[in-house]
Amino acid sequence: MHSHNPNLNALIETQKEIKLLGSIASVLGWDQETYMPEEALLWRSEQLAWLSGQMHRRETAPEIKDLLDKLEDYSPADDREKALLKVARREFRRAEVFPEDYVIEKARHHSLAQNGWIQAREKEDFEAFRPFLEKNMEFARRDAEYLGYEEHPYDALLDLYEPDMKASQIKELFDPLGEYLAGLVKRIGEKPPVRDDFLSRSCPVDKQEELGKEVLKAIGYDFGKGRLDATAHPFTSELGPADIRVTTRYDEFDFCSNLFSVIHEGGHALYEMGIDSTLSETLLGTGTSLGIHESQSRFWENLLGRSRAFCEGFLPLYQNYFPQAFGDIDGESFYRGINRVKPSFIRVEADEVTYSLHVILRFNLELALLEGSLAVKDLPEAWNEESRKLLGILPESVSQGVLQDVHWSHGLIGYFSTYALGNLYGAQFMARMKKDIPQLDDLLRQRNCEPPLKWLREKIHRHGSVYSSAELCRKICGEDLDYRYFIDYLEKKYLEIYGV
Amino acid sequence: MHSHNPNLNALIETQKEIKLLGSIASVLGWDQETYMPEEALLWRSEQLAWLSGQMHRRETAPEIKDLLDKLEDYSPADDREKALLKVARREFRRAEVFPEDYVIEKARHHSLAQNGWIQAREKEDFEAFRPFLEKNMEFARRDAEYLGYEEHPYDALLDLYEPDMKASQIKELFDPLGEYLAGLVKRIGEKPPVRDDFLSRSCPVDKQEELGKEVLKAIGYDFGKGRLDATAHPFTSELGPADIRVTTRYDEFDFCSNLFSVIHEGGHALYEMGIDSTLSETLLGTGTSLGIHESQSRFWENLLGRSRAFCEGFLPLYQNYFPQAFGDIDGESFYRGINRVKPSFIRVEADEVTYSLHVILRFNLELALLEGSLAVKDLPEAWNEESRKLLGILPESVSQGVLQDVHWSHGLIGYFSTYALGNLYGAQFMARMKKDIPQLDDLLRQRNCEPPLKWLREKIHRHGSVYSSAELCRKICGEDLDYRYFIDYLEKKYLEIYGV
Repeated sequence: MHSHNPNLNALIETQKEIKLLGSIASVLGWDQETYMPEEALLWRSEQLAWLSGQMHRRETAPEIKDLLDKLEDYSPADDREKALLKVARREFRRAEVFPEDYVIEKARHHSLAQNGWIQAREKEDFEAFRPFLEKNMEFARRDAEYLGYEEHPYDALLDLYEPDMKASQIKELFDPLGEYLAGLVKRIGEKPPVRDDFLSRSCPVDKQEELGKEVLKAIGYDFGKGRLDATAHPFTSELGPADIRVTTRYDEFDFCSNLFSVIHEGGHALYEMGIDSTLSETLLGTGTSLGIHESQSRFWENLLGRSRAFCEGFLPLYQNYFPQAFGDIDGESFYRGINRVKPSFIRVEADEVTYSLHVILRFNLELALLEGSLAVKDLPEAWNEESRKLLGILPESVSQGVLQDVHWSHGLIGYFSTYALGNLYGAQFMARMKKDIPQLDDLLRQRNCEPPLKWLREKIHRHGSVYSSAELCRKICGEDLDYRYFIDYLEKKYLEIYGV
Repeated sequence: MHSHNPNLNALIETQKEIKLLGSIASVLGWDQETYMPEEALLWRSEQLAWLSGQMHRRETAPEIKDLLDKLEDYSPADDREKALLKVARREFRRAEVFPEDYVIEKARHHSLAQNGWIQAREKEDFEAFRPFLEKNMEFARRDAEYLGYEEHPYDALLDLYEPDMKASQIKELFDPLGEYLAGLVKRIGEKPPVRDDFLSRSCPVDKQEELGKEVLKAIGYDFGKGRLDATAHPFTSELGPADIRVTTRYDEFDFCSNLFSVIHEGGHALYEMGIDSTLSETLLGTGTSLGIHESQSRFWENLLGRSRAFCEGFLPLYQNYFPQAFGDIDGESFYRGINRVKPSFIRVEADEVTYSLHVILRFNLELALLEGSLAVKDLPEAWNEESRKLLGILPESVSQGVLQDVHWSHGLIGYFSTYALGNLYGAQFMARMKKDIPQLDDLLRQRNCEPPLKWLREKIHRHGSVYSSAELCRKICGEDLDYRYFIDYLEKKYLEIYGV
């Protein structure tokens, strides 16, 4: 990206170093979760802490402040320049409020806490993780104080992931959504269950890996710019503009776990891979918010990946890899099976109806933790109580309950709600895509994912962070975020499957 | 490490950041050679270039100069303090002679050149690598000028890998050594060949990987602090004090390639793993020179790994993994087979007699390249000519000849001779070990590698860089490096195998 204004150009120059530094930390983070030997942890946390300090120093460089001051009265030439200035100001402010020592200490602790979580999860021992989480919550509260907020400390944290959104707005969306979903779960529960026994038939892990790669290629993931590995918790990481890696996990007796993780992470990766390369050395060269990021991952996972047409198109492929598991299953049965609605413990494996309830559960707990009305030591009990209330089930172990997600160990508080926002944005985008690509189902039946990918690239991916979530939504759909698209989508889909 | 002198302590403090930075670059380097997607290369080279610049800035910090000046008249309290000061001065001087831009540009180019080498090797096309190598040679010559030298530009480069050694000393060792080895090869060539056909029987790669891990464990490699992966060229990398990773390569029909790569790299790793942990945040916390490092890798690979006792001890293990390949082979035949002497193309797979001839070949070419009497464009021909002269064979392809090693692509000129030094140091250390552990062969026959490892740790590993190569040799053996130990060793071993 290049500007006619020399100060703006100089500002753009400062961002390349910040991007380089961030991407170096991403390499170390990716390695920590994939291949790092166990005892390397302490040094790794020192490496990451050092990088955080360096990052903070660049983000708060007097040169940046000086350039931003000089650009105070500059009228941006276009949307990109406008966004670049906005994001540069936002990131400068987000960094300058923190003392460097604090940033370093926090990064060191997050790296250690992530390992603490893995250990505790393996031992099914929440108490082993408690001190890490207590310290992370303390960091989160202090983050909120440093960053500042008007209504709720949660707002300060949420803004890091979903700029310009507030807890009160989330509540306005989640309250009617939660109520609707709880009603839908109840209505579905009264109907006869759909058959899904075949999804727990044996699917050898090496074959699952091959299939995952083939599906990734089919949706447009470029292995020249990425790779697929196995981790405890699937994730996507950008290690460079042409280095977007995804991970998954395997269970021989749970076909869906790997398949939909791969498609989900693939959706994140396609977003990053599709960003205009002229943005890649600037702060605009990444997804605009986590809500939009999740709209992309869940778009591929659910709106496309769990659609009838996609099932019909891809089932022959699944059958090729696992003839013994799926040879006797037709497209319609498969479609119904993978869309079975049933309250379950693990968020990432939840169906589309109960999924957002898992998010609401976490949102409620995070609010209480931040307000101080809930102590970390009481969290497992509070988790179980919320689970009973929202999902009607009680986890049998902490790895199926409060310890199931990696996020809190990384210090990511205020992050979960963006998953549900992704569902809402995604459904609204899909309504628009169906108008633009009326033959979408036919294409999916032919396993041709190029037209929807092209649409997403054109409308969303290429822009990186040039437009905010709200701006993107208005540009694409001509209106603000509206949760009723998601409800309409669920209503139609599950009327047909369950007759509710 | 802690000193009573506050200036020395402050100097020690400056080294931790340098170690952190170096280890971060190692993570990126390791990833580049193992798992990085192809198109990520350009950004990776930018990341590494940035890290080099930062490294250079720390290494040449005015604070270090200031502390070194203040410590000018300080009398070190012990060997560690003495060494720390010596190494700190050496590293400061080695860094300050270079301009920062030059360091960054060189690092960027080395990262690209490494990929250029991989591509050229795959295509068997020296011309594709030539521009990279020309630039690397240009960097090497400029390095030598910046670093300064009295006799030969090679000396300036060699000093980076083998401090205090000169090309003229190498020549003094290599001339009689080369002559002896050529004679021994000739004498052996006149005898009937030993049988080694069974070594190219099929050994499935997944089983080779399992065996490699078991052998690594048996020699004392700690997988809590490391891991084993596959790469084009086997290497060991220290990504942190408790993160020493090794790599190997697999060929279903070449059992020795993986096995002896694994033991060789394991030997390097054991050295780094054995360094006293109180040194790990200082510049002393690494092997003292590449000659000593190679003495360790080649000690395990050859002096132990290819000994009759080790063969007798480990053959049953090899047979367990590959009953069809080795079930009908007895210990003596196996021992003779893996010690078969025959001029061959690939250095890392050469036998103990011809190996050093491969090194002498590279040493001669590097001298000529640095002197300018040989141009890079004429290198393949010169390589073949040297090969004919020293080994009596002509490579059939560039991947078997001039493109076989990774070193030149990394800009490592002056490095190869340390391999042969390793052979010499190793044989001298072995003569001493045999006096200290007279029952060594019995132990190896029982697959008990702990006593030799303990000896190496005590005498060599734990000291890190506290003693120079020459000091270590005198401390352990009571005398200077003497190439005749190596000749004695070969003479005895091959008299017995071939009756020469």
